[in-house]
Amino acid sequence: MFYCDKRLQYPVKVENPDPIFARMLQQAIGGVEGEIRVCMQYFFQAWGSRGPSTKYRDMLLHTATEEMGHVEMLATAVALNLEKAPTSLQEEGAADGVVGAVMGGGSARHTIEGMLHRHLLSTGMAAFPANCEGVPFDMSHIYASGNLAADMYCNVAAEATGRTLAVRLYNAAHDAGMKDMLHFMIARDTMHQEQWLAVIEELGGHEGTLPIPNSFPQSKEHQEFNYNFFATARDGSAPPEGRWTNGPSLDGKGTYSVFQNEPLGEEPVLGPARPDSGAQNEQIG
Amino acid sequence: MFYCDKRLQYPVKVENPDPIFARMLQQAIGGVEGEIRVCMQYFFQAWGSRGPSTKYRDMLLHTATEEMGHVEMLATAVALNLEKAPTSLQEEGAADGVVGAVMGGGSARHTIEGMLHRHLLSTGMAAFPANCEGVPFDMSHIYASGNLAADMYCNVAAEATGRTLAVRLYNAAHDAGMKDMLHFMIARDTMHQEQWLAVIEELGGHEGTLPIPNSFPQSKEHQEFNYNFFATARDGSAPPEGRWTNGPSLDGKGTYSVFQNEPLGEEPVLGPARPDSGAQNEQIG
Amino acid sequence: MFYCDKRLQYPVKVENPDPIFARMLQQAIGGVEGEIRVCMQYFFQAWGSRGPSTKYRDMLLHTATEEMGHVEMLATAVALNLEKAPTSLQEEGAADGVVGAVMGGGSARHTIEGMLHRHLLSTGMAAFPANCEGVPFDMSHIYASGNLAADMYCNVAAEATGRTLAVRLYNAAHDAGMKDMLHFMIARDTMHQEQWLAVIEELGGHEGTLPIPNSFPQSKEHQEFNYNFFATARDGSAPPEGRWTNGPSLDGKGTYSVFQNEPLGEEPVLGPARPDSGAQNEQIG
Amino acid sequence: MFYCDKRLQYPVKVENPDPIFARMLQQAIGGVEGEIRVCMQYFFQAWGSRGPSTKYRDMLLHTATEEMGHVEMLATAVALNLEKAPTSLQEEGAADGVVGAVMGGGSARHTIEGMLHRHLLSTGMAAFPANCEGVPFDMSHIYASGNLAADMYCNVAAEATGRTLAVRLYNAAHDAGMKDMLHFMIARDTMHQEQWLAVIEELGGHEGTLPIPNSFPQSKEHQEFNYNFFATARDGSAPPEGRWTNGPSLDGKGTYSVFQNEPLGEEPVLGPARPDSGAQNEQIG
Amino acid sequence: MFYCDKRLQYPVKVENPDPIFARMLQQAIGGVEGEIRVCMQYFFQAWGSRGPSTKYRDMLLHTATEEMGHVEMLATAVALNLEKAPTSLQEEGAADGVVGAVMGGGSARHTIEGMLHRHLLSTGMAAFPANCEGVPFDMSHIYASGNLAADMYCNVAAEATGRTLAVRLYNAAHDAGMKDMLHFMIARDTMHQEQWLAVIEELGGHEGTLPIPNSFPQSKEHQEFNYNFFATARDGSAPPEGRWTNGPSLDGKGTYSVFQNEPLGEEPVLGPARPDSGAQNEQIG
Amino acid sequence: MFYCDKRLQYPVKVENPDPIFARMLQQAIGGVEGEIRVCMQYFFQAWGSRGPSTKYRDMLLHTATEEMGHVEMLATAVALNLEKAPTSLQEEGAADGVVGAVMGGGSARHTIEGMLHRHLLSTGMAAFPANCEGVPFDMSHIYASGNLAADMYCNVAAEATGRTLAVRLYNAAHDAGMKDMLHFMIARDTMHQEQWLAVIEELGGHEGTLPIPNSFPQSKEHQEFNYNFFATARDGSAPPEGRWTNGPSLDGKGTYSVFQNEPLGEEPVLGPARPDSGAQNEQIG
Repeated sequence: MFYCDKRLQYPVKVENPDPIFARMLQQAIGGVEGEIRVCMQYFFQAWGSRGPSTKYRDMLLHTATEEMGHVEMLATAVALNLEKAPTSLQEEGAADGVVGAVMGGGSARHTIEGMLHRHLLSTGMAAFPANCEGVPFDMSHIYASGNLAADMYCNVAAEATGRTLAVRLYNAAHDAGMKDMLHFMIARDTMHQEQWLAVIEELGGHEGTLPIPNSFPQSKEHQEFNYNFFATARDGSAPPEGRWTNGPSLDGKGTYSVFQNEPLGEEPVLGPARPDSGAQNEQIG
Repeated sequence: MFYCDKRLQYPVKVENPDPIFARMLQQAIGGVEGEIRVCMQYFFQAWGSRGPSTKYRDMLLHTATEEMGHVEMLATAVALNLEKAPTSLQEEGAADGVVGAVMGGGSARHTIEGMLHRHLLSTGMAAFPANCEGVPFDMSHIYASGNLAADMYCNVAAEATGRTLAVRLYNAAHDAGMKDMLHFMIARDTMHQEQWLAVIEELGGHEGTLPIPNSFPQSKEHQEFNYNFFATARDGSAPPEGRWTNGPSLDGKGTYSVFQNEPLGEEPVLGPARPDSGAQNEQIG
Repeated sequence: MFYCDKRLQYPVKVENPDPIFARMLQQAIGGVEGEIRVCMQYFFQAWGSRGPSTKYRDMLLHTATEEMGHVEMLATAVALNLEKAPTSLQEEGAADGVVGAVMGGGSARHTIEGMLHRHLLSTGMAAFPANCEGVPFDMSHIYASGNLAADMYCNVAAEATGRTLAVRLYNAAHDAGMKDMLHFMIARDTMHQEQWLAVIEELGGHEGTLPIPNSFPQSKEHQEFNYNFFATARDGSAPPEGRWTNGPSLDGKGTYSVFQNEPLGEEPVLGPARPDSGAQNEQIG
Repeated sequence: MFYCDKRLQYPVKVENPDPIFARMLQQAIGGVEGEIRVCMQYFFQAWGSRGPSTKYRDMLLHTATEEMGHVEMLATAVALNLEKAPTSLQEEGAADGVVGAVMGGGSARHTIEGMLHRHLLSTGMAAFPANCEGVPFDMSHIYASGNLAADMYCNVAAEATGRTLAVRLYNAAHDAGMKDMLHFMIARDTMHQEQWLAVIEELGGHEGTLPIPNSFPQSKEHQEFNYNFFATARDGSAPPEGRWTNGPSLDGKGTYSVFQNEPLGEEPVLGPARPDSGAQNEQIG
Repeated sequence: MFYCDKRLQYPVKVENPDPIFARMLQQAIGGVEGEIRVCMQYFFQAWGSRGPSTKYRDMLLHTATEEMGHVEMLATAVALNLEKAPTSLQEEGAADGVVGAVMGGGSARHTIEGMLHRHLLSTGMAAFPANCEGVPFDMSHIYASGNLAADMYCNVAAEATGRTLAVRLYNAAHDAGMKDMLHFMIARDTMHQEQWLAVIEELGGHEGTLPIPNSFPQSKEHQEFNYNFFATARDGSAPPEGRWTNGPSLDGKGTYSVFQNEPLGEEPVLGPARPDSGAQNEQIG
Repeated sequence: MFYCDKRLQYPVKVENPDPIFARMLQQAIGGVEGEIRVCMQYFFQAWGSRGPSTKYRDMLLHTATEEMGHVEMLATAVALNLEKAPTSLQEEGAADGVVGAVMGGGSARHTIEGMLHRHLLSTGMAAFPANCEGVPFDMSHIYASGNLAADMYCNVAAEATGRTLAVRLYNAAHDAGMKDMLHFMIARDTMHQEQWLAVIEELGGHEGTLPIPNSFPQSKEHQEFNYNFFATARDGSAPPEGRWTNGPSLDGKGTYSVFQNEPLGEEPVLGPARPDSGAQNEQIG
């Protein structure tokens, strides 16, 4: 279960509110690279964690709880960036000096055009769980597979795209307070990337974890095709050479090679449609 | 651009058609761990690939093209598994001996109950791009971030959950043809997991790639908090020890430690609502 | 604007309620081939109708209004089919004789397994705007393009898949009342398919309407490639002969031929990533 | 910010694991009436709260934090109900005695047919943020309007449908542990329904809060039509009498009456399509 | 069943067409606070209405039918606001005097940037069932629970957020015709808020309806926890005092109090993963 | 199975990159009228094709494969249009001369306001499978019904709306390279419209194919109502005359007439709610 603290994990200050930056921050709240995603992903991985002891479950709970505080910081930042946002398309709205200044002299109308309209129409100048285009967060992005190693890589992927997003926001930002908040979040993403990779390390690295899931005997997979790069181009070019085209495999269990893709199967043959299946007469055998 | 071949990449045979297994296979077509996802993810990563040469772009194109052939195999397998599926809830439908045999004596009605109804009602006994619950594939799951290392981890995540799914399907299957098809696909997933990790290796491993993106100077992130595990429990327990709680960091650039999470910020203060913002009178300053 | 009548357009009777058939009927309510879709599609086409006179606008309004009554009939049919549905997984639930009889002796538990659970958990035994798998209707399926001919083909597509669905439901049904309701709806779909094709006829048939939009001068399109079938197979087979591979085109403005697809363009070259764009260092030019 | 406690808010015990009940419980996790919804709704309302003091913001934070613990309980309950679930469609799977007993003698295959397949294929026997049909939770259901009174009614709606769902789950359940967990949650929903209505009471009840938003002067709305029930039937019947058809309005500011709906506007006239707008020639003026 | 009338319920006039306001109006069509939602919500509640007589069913049908006419008005308003919208990013487009005037001298290009692009690209300058960000309406927002009181609160929530939206649109508008249309719709929302609350009143108010559903005996809920406010903060602050922290409960059946939240349950224990469940070896017991 | 060629099907050149046009092009990638849709629709129709020989299956495979190359061209065009796009809201960003020139002197900030923010934040200046508003492509738009004639009309609808979109993009474009690419794509859409209609012709035209599905005996549909236009207006106006109101039907099997819609059914009567179904007490019989 959980407890809250009214104070934020880290200071959130906005000196020059900017409704366009509020829109950008939404990606870090409700985007697929955002904080709701990692928070909920770590929670669901924890709640479904089976074996080997509760070590990883506990770690996941700690970090998921931290991430909830990040969502809070970002939602606060959005609301603060919307403090001076305009509410009317009428020309008198342009008189709002503060917005005008931020906008480089643009009118209220101009500002509204670039804002998420739902900040004005649906939330009354506050954050909502959607991305920077206003697309609501869809929880199918919570990856929790029941396989510990697979989940760790899902988490690395989330934190790698997440830190990339945070860096882009930092580069786009003009407000010192926002840059300060983001430089904290970027630091946390640095740690979180490593945290999940450290679990892979603990589990034996590539040799210990690959192929995922390692509980399926490789003798049952088609061993003629499990370490070949399949080349599919028909433009006369050879595939590029790389660590994956020859030499021992990363898991130490095979040798890479190149296989020119060709059909090993036949043209498929499906039976005709049944008379009562809603097909056209011509399709019925 | 692309060319097709009417023959399948690998044989797809079904001796004992099973509409319930057809439903399961849909997860490998239109599920988030499925083949449309990896196919399209690799294509979009290739088409947006910038630097360092076209090496990774080319590799991605080869593999994306291979994956399209996997979607074809699975769609064929679904159609073949639906060949004897019933079309009516009426009792006479139970006379369909073939289905009855597969189902362990169950009636046509019983079989329909367990099927995806859309196989009967929408597709006329064929595959469609949805998962095993009938939820259509949503292309927000195509991760292509513009950061090469982040994308590689997105791909490892996709192949790790993908092979886990394929193994589960293999374990659930009862038909020799289906097991044969899946044991080929599982082998391909083995290779693909390594292929993307091999790119990381080529780029210098953890030290060369972390933190992602490595183009953001770490001097700009909050260096007090970039290698600490934040403990958030308030139940008196210490966080579990792990590779991530002490010792040198995986990227060789810091030292892990534990930080007891506490509020570094203050309680947020938002301004009152504007008079024309649709709030209640009581909220207006 | 609109008026209602408490009576149904056509009788809806259910003698043997069947929760599994209630699930199937949901496809005709909230499926992409269903009645909400055609109702709303015709309304939005009408409300955005521009030129040539209000003739087609008026026709669309008439039929959209009729379709709303079809949604009502189907929603009523779902509720009636759920009248005897079980509410408990406990064994005593099996004592519900009526359900047992319909189900061929199955228990209440068995019936719940095949039902849409949301009929029990979310609606209290009533219809909802989702399909037979419980996926909510998504209004992106309302096609209204602003081009009259394109819209008519969207409507033919909707009624063709719609009548196919209705026929499949008829074939699956066991209740005389349900068959009666459906044989009315199938008749209406017959008319509606023709209604939209008759508009094409009025507009001059293929010669008058193709290519859609006919307001774009064909001199501006690439006239070397506007009547060729592009063959893309690389398996040594020739493409099948058909009405579309030779002879005069349907619109009377060209001649069909076959073109073996080959790259007319070059390998694309994208610039390197910008230093501040969140890429890896290796991608930056 | 937030803290976690490894212990659950209330005991979660499952004596007779039941994969079908696991499916049902998903509605309380990822359904629109479920706990993720209320948790996130209260959080976003709190984080965007403007005026009149932080009283309601604080209350919302307390309760949102409580609800997160409810999601945890339910996710745990799903995992426990899946402990004995089958993984194979093969007949030998039927030998699993525990499942067989719960299922009333059904085979493993039968059990899988009624389960959410993603519990087997995607999560490895754990909860995920989707509803009982496997449809992922979509965060557009987080209602936070920026209007305090509107939000309170959104919350009452959420808790009223939420307690209705919890009661249906209680009635469907057969396991004593599950009934115990649910009878706690039902109690909490009782309180939460009242909590939000108590805010309305504090704000002056109907007279103080209606119409919402009360900051818009009613003199600006069309006062001829703000307290009439519009009758739209054309079947000769009068609308039913009710508290809303005559007498003083609930807000004390008007008198109810009945108005027979009729067109006050004209048939709309849209301009013809522009020549370059992609319409058919016939539509262009 | 239904009838249409070619005339609008209320006049819709636009003197100064504004494509940005067309975008805003989309929220009232296809937003979660919009008119398709209330229309369909009332219809589905009516069509699934069970007991106590047809009184509420009839009322719902009347109002749902009215709401369909509101969708029509708004769709007309969108089309009229798009009458002068530009179709080209080329500079010559800037010569369109009418748009220029409305836009405060902005170019055609500038106008397109602020528009919903789908108004130009997908609809040919007409409305579509999506919100102001172009996100299609998703029918999961049709709340019809089968519980009369819960449904009434869902309707109050819809009309409270709906009137808030209409007020925001009114405040943002600059066209007299649009303000006239909206001041009618705002009036109707005033009535509809009260209409649903009047049903609660008829059913006995808080004492008669709470807790919802009132058909579940409160003796079966955990009576120790059904009237307590759970405090979850761990920052040393007491929860705010309110109508809900002490005194008799609104339903007259209990007394409010405050409970400091603490774990009543234990740390959950899940079994290890099964060998054939796709987990890593380390997770298997 | 499939092969790739690194070269594009047709040249894609961009002289004046324009991030706003990049946004527009997204509709042709991930919009419902776009190329992913037709590509996948033709593939799924092919893979599920049953009877009458493999002729249509083969044709579908050829064209689906061609369409994949169109997605590639468009994705390349998006990336090229984003080459000079800004990454920062700060004023110094305005110094980017190239963008400024394209934008008619607008600042970097202004350009970002009109861009899809995800081009900057999520993809690092590349295409992604979403439409021009950033809404991800949802694969429920892949229509493959199992009925050959219905599918052909779905394809005509897709190509008719697709060519309408391409024409609108052509009209909006200012870059010669983009106009060249589009004038090729428009030509291909011309052919594809006819290709599917030619199948209808081969199958016997309207008389041979209607009503769809033609395998359902018309004697089983309600023959009193299968060729009537139902008039539903109650405003005193007669429905418009058209090809569909009198004369022989297009399929040669009936005669059109007009029927004034009236209720043929009764007011529906649903049973009361069950005591354990979560309704209010008043609803229980």
